Amino acid sequence: MKNKIKHLLLGNPLSTEQSGEKRLNKVRALAAFSPDALSSIAYANQEIYLGLALAGAAGLALSLPIGLTISVLLIIVAISYYQTIHGYPQGGGSYIVTRQNLGTMPSLVAGAAIMVDYLLTAAVSLTAGVEALASAFPVLWEHRVLAALSILLVITLINLRGLKEAGTIMAVPVYLFLFTYLPLLAYGALRLFMDGPGDIQASAPSAIQPLAGLLVLRAFASGCTALTGIEAISDGVPAFRPPQAKNAGRTLAVMAVLMFTLFVGSISLIQGLAVVPGPQETILSALARRLLGSGPLYILIQASTMLILAVAANTSFADFPRVASFLAKDGFIPRQLGNLGDRLVFSNGILILAAGTAGLIIAFQGDTHALVPLFAIGAFMAFTLSQSSMVVHWLRERGPNWQIKAAANGAGALATGTTLLVVAISKFNQGAWLTILVIPTLVIIFLKIRAHYRTVSAQLSLRGLPPSLKPAGPMRAVIPVSGVHRGMIDAVLFTQSISRQVTGVYIELEPGASKNVQEMWKRWFPDVPLVVLPSPYRSIIEPLLQFLDETDRQHNDGQMAMIVLPEFVPARWWHALLHNQTSWMIKNALLYNRREKGYQRVIIDVPYHLKR
Amino acid sequence: MKNKIKHLLLGNPLSTEQSGEKRLNKVRALAAFSPDALSSIAYANQEIYLGLALAGAAGLALSLPIGLTISVLLIIVAISYYQTIHGYPQGGGSYIVTRQNLGTMPSLVAGAAIMVDYLLTAAVSLTAGVEALASAFPVLWEHRVLAALSILLVITLINLRGLKEAGTIMAVPVYLFLFTYLPLLAYGALRLFMDGPGDIQASAPSAIQPLAGLLVLRAFASGCTALTGIEAISDGVPAFRPPQAKNAGRTLAVMAVLMFTLFVGSISLIQGLAVVPGPQETILSALARRLLGSGPLYILIQASTMLILAVAANTSFADFPRVASFLAKDGFIPRQLGNLGDRLVFSNGILILAAGTAGLIIAFQGDTHALVPLFAIGAFMAFTLSQSSMVVHWLRERGPNWQIKAAANGAGALATGTTLLVVAISKFNQGAWLTILVIPTLVIIFLKIRAHYRTVSAQLSLRGLPPSLKPAGPMRAVIPVSGVHRGMIDAVLFTQSISRQVTGVYIELEPGASKNVQEMWKRWFPDVPLVVLPSPYRSIIEPLLQFLDETDRQHNDGQMAMIVLPEFVPARWWHALLHNQTSWMIKNALLYNRREKGYQRVIIDVPYHLKR
Repeated sequence: MKNKIKHLLLGNPLSTEQSGEKRLNKVRALAAFSPDALSSIAYANQEIYLGLALAGAAGLALSLPIGLTISVLLIIVAISYYQTIHGYPQGGGSYIVTRQNLGTMPSLVAGAAIMVDYLLTAAVSLTAGVEALASAFPVLWEHRVLAALSILLVITLINLRGLKEAGTIMAVPVYLFLFTYLPLLAYGALRLFMDGPGDIQASAPSAIQPLAGLLVLRAFASGCTALTGIEAISDGVPAFRPPQAKNAGRTLAVMAVLMFTLFVGSISLIQGLAVVPGPQETILSALARRLLGSGPLYILIQASTMLILAVAANTSFADFPRVASFLAKDGFIPRQLGNLGDRLVFSNGILILAAGTAGLIIAFQGDTHALVPLFAIGAFMAFTLSQSSMVVHWLRERGPNWQIKAAANGAGALATGTTLLVVAISKFNQGAWLTILVIPTLVIIFLKIRAHYRTVSAQLSLRGLPPSLKPAGPMRAVIPVSGVHRGMIDAVLFTQSISRQVTGVYIELEPGASKNVQEMWKRWFPDVPLVVLPSPYRSIIEPLLQFLDETDRQHNDGQMAMIVLPEFVPARWWHALLHNQTSWMIKNALLYNRREKGYQRVIIDVPYHLKR
Repeated sequence: MKNKIKHLLLGNPLSTEQSGEKRLNKVRALAAFSPDALSSIAYANQEIYLGLALAGAAGLALSLPIGLTISVLLIIVAISYYQTIHGYPQGGGSYIVTRQNLGTMPSLVAGAAIMVDYLLTAAVSLTAGVEALASAFPVLWEHRVLAALSILLVITLINLRGLKEAGTIMAVPVYLFLFTYLPLLAYGALRLFMDGPGDIQASAPSAIQPLAGLLVLRAFASGCTALTGIEAISDGVPAFRPPQAKNAGRTLAVMAVLMFTLFVGSISLIQGLAVVPGPQETILSALARRLLGSGPLYILIQASTMLILAVAANTSFADFPRVASFLAKDGFIPRQLGNLGDRLVFSNGILILAAGTAGLIIAFQGDTHALVPLFAIGAFMAFTLSQSSMVVHWLRERGPNWQIKAAANGAGALATGTTLLVVAISKFNQGAWLTILVIPTLVIIFLKIRAHYRTVSAQLSLRGLPPSLKPAGPMRAVIPVSGVHRGMIDAVLFTQSISRQVTGVYIELEPGASKNVQEMWKRWFPDVPLVVLPSPYRSIIEPLLQFLDETDRQHNDGQMAMIVLPEFVPARWWHALLHNQTSWMIKNALLYNRREKGYQRVIIDVPYHLKR
């Protein structure tokens, strides 16, 4: 029943052999890996506007220069990642590249940074998407959290179904976005050319801060969120059809050109037309409304913005679980995150990402502007480490043109490292401190987890054991008795077949309650002794454990008694609510609670299945 | 650690022998069982006022006549319960009395009704208590839900500590209430005598409904909530010091006189002085403010009202778990509710009542007026069944003066039955329908639960088994193998000591992964065969269960293989988060999932305890 619902929602299980089939062609791959990068113009533009508008018209005049600076950064980073794809055709995420070239500690920083980045990408994309739609339908504004969570739920379910189907569903919004936005920008350019530029002095809000260096740096730092997502393809090379590196590289180039066009195009139009948004409106919505009015075309633009941002959250769902699985295979995070689920996706990673994203959306009340200061840190930290690693990679490998390649990646590392510093310092007390705190915390947790796995494996190791083992001797057996019934018969007969020293133990909760049981016991099992233990505090566990300890001590034969539990299993799971869970409590106590004394007791369950 | 916190909050465990000491003297018993009855004047007065004020001054003129009618009912019910106490000195709650005299079905109706009544008493008392305090401190008004839940939490903890200590803590507010309210009423009577009656025509709100019969009946029905709680003593006779019946009867008489005085006194003053409350104020608060102003004396009155109402919720916590334990011992509700906890209280019943009360407070947003229509039904249904049972009791027993006793209880049954009809009809569409729906639903659940227990006991019965049982034959053993490690050594050696046919089974999740394990296995266990099973869908459970079924079929010896699980137990519970819970999943699948095929497999846990 539970499985049927699961298969209906998520599809039937797929066998490991089917994993080859789930590869993406370029059109689908662009849809699967580019939405974050493309859609980031939505919040990057918005944040540049919000940052500069504090200084009024004088501030807003800097929009285009800042946009162009970020575009130069975009080109440098894209060239760097193009090289990463060819250097690491098996998949060159920051974590793997850094681990191979710079060692464990830097790679853990990169891994933590990139996981935090994916998480924030999902959260910011969803809140920004809802804000885009709420610009067209203001009634949504007060239900932002609920709307974002609903979209998150849909995306989570789609991703649990698996990558190829996700690619199919996601392709529509990505191409819808491109085929509405690019014409919009072209039309805007035409209007700007024909009507001439707008008067920013007249329309801009009045300045509430002077135009200072920190304000400009902050606007630049916020705008750098436009670059997040550009690394997604290099992480996902194995998902491409062969020749994988070539296809991935071309897809990256196409994506970078699109990003540049969308970002520089929209920011030029906003400044040129002197666009200013209303109180509950994004800057892109104001641009579209200025060009198209508030009719159906405008609503189509806003809907496609919302859709691509929703799909951008999907970039995280494709890549977060993959990075988590790399770390899991190296023993830095729980192993369960490295297991493929029924549908060949890393289900546990998807679920954890979904929970974290929901937490962020709720904690920040669906407010993109509050989330953004936490955001760019992770991405640029990973960029910097990844590019630095590539420099080391080329220095070691020295293939054709290695000097040029190393220089290009070096330039990338320098540019992204500088940006990282700018973002960290200028945004520190607006929220970046939280990310700066979380990343080293995660690294410490990763190290603790690996230490634990190593300790366990040392304790389980066979090294030092004598090559021939002496067989175990005969053991005593103790049967806790709840009453004399059919389940007890099975248990006693089984126990007699494997042990010659069998004892029943009855815990008497109310004085005198044992009389009836003792009589029945003598009638059915005359050759098995029954011990009655009083329990003045009405506990079943404590007297039983004490009895086991004492008899072990008395026998003094180095053996410990095995415990046989006759357990009747109800016919329906909810019947269990109607019975005391005594067997379960005893098993639990024997397995876990007595660990400190180092006891090792064999626990035997003899189930008796009820039919009704 | 967990236990330490528990003992600090709730006290150390008490032994069964200590239960005799926990008996109450009359002063404490009055405090433990009367608060519901005494404090009900708070909401009963309020509801009469709210009901009649709809018809303006003409309606409010009927306050005193309605109050006097309810007082007559009070006297009849009190006499009836006095007789119940003497007829059933071992504790004569509605459920027990009805079960003995009218049979199972009526007793289940009584049991369900009284449990619903206790639940609503707790909820209504808490919300009314908060409203009393909020009349003095209006800022509380918007935090009513939170305030009520906080008091609920404190009461729950106090009750989990045990009855005697509850009695001690509860006595203070009860006597504080009596020693502030009785003088207030006396002072009010003096003022009424000296100043003359107030002018209700001038102060009453204007009528919004005509003075119709239904309106008067509804006001009467709401006012009948004043009688709830009067049965508490008859349920709790065993908690009194001996001679129990005599002490309980006297306490009941004192309580009834106090109820009468408080109820008739306050309602006379309210009508006589023409008191009318402000918008966020209860009628009793308005009375106190009229007589005392808004100074410290007034605040003391409101605080003591709040306190006794909080303590009234305690009546439910003393009696709900007791009734639940009676029903549990008869097999109508889960047995766990019949077990005394560490501190000689029925902890499970207390926790369920607390959860239900919290649910009601949240669902009804802490609004007493919305809860009251659900309320009186349960109490009067239980009253009616209980009094009718007493008639049958006297007819059967025929002691001295049995005719008088039967007639008195008959009058009680008639009066309460008529009231029940009035309440059910006049309040039906204001919420009483919900209670009328819940009570038969509970009865059906009770019957289903008993049917389940009977089915189980028939299946476990030894009747029909041959008197001599043949011992179990030797069994095959299967060991699921995760790898070759220390835990595996223990498991294999143990298994070889109890079975001559041991097989290891390795589930291969990824093709080729078994090679290393196979080599290690051959080196350490050359005489134990290892079977490798492919698992294309990466499930561990399914291939294992299939293998077990198939080999059982091949051997065709009527025996089923036992499963030996080598399980390493981590040193700290939270380490479990870092490991796949494979053993647990296998155990679960073997115990529960395969039930339909009737398999019965012995499951053996060989734990290996990690030390770090």
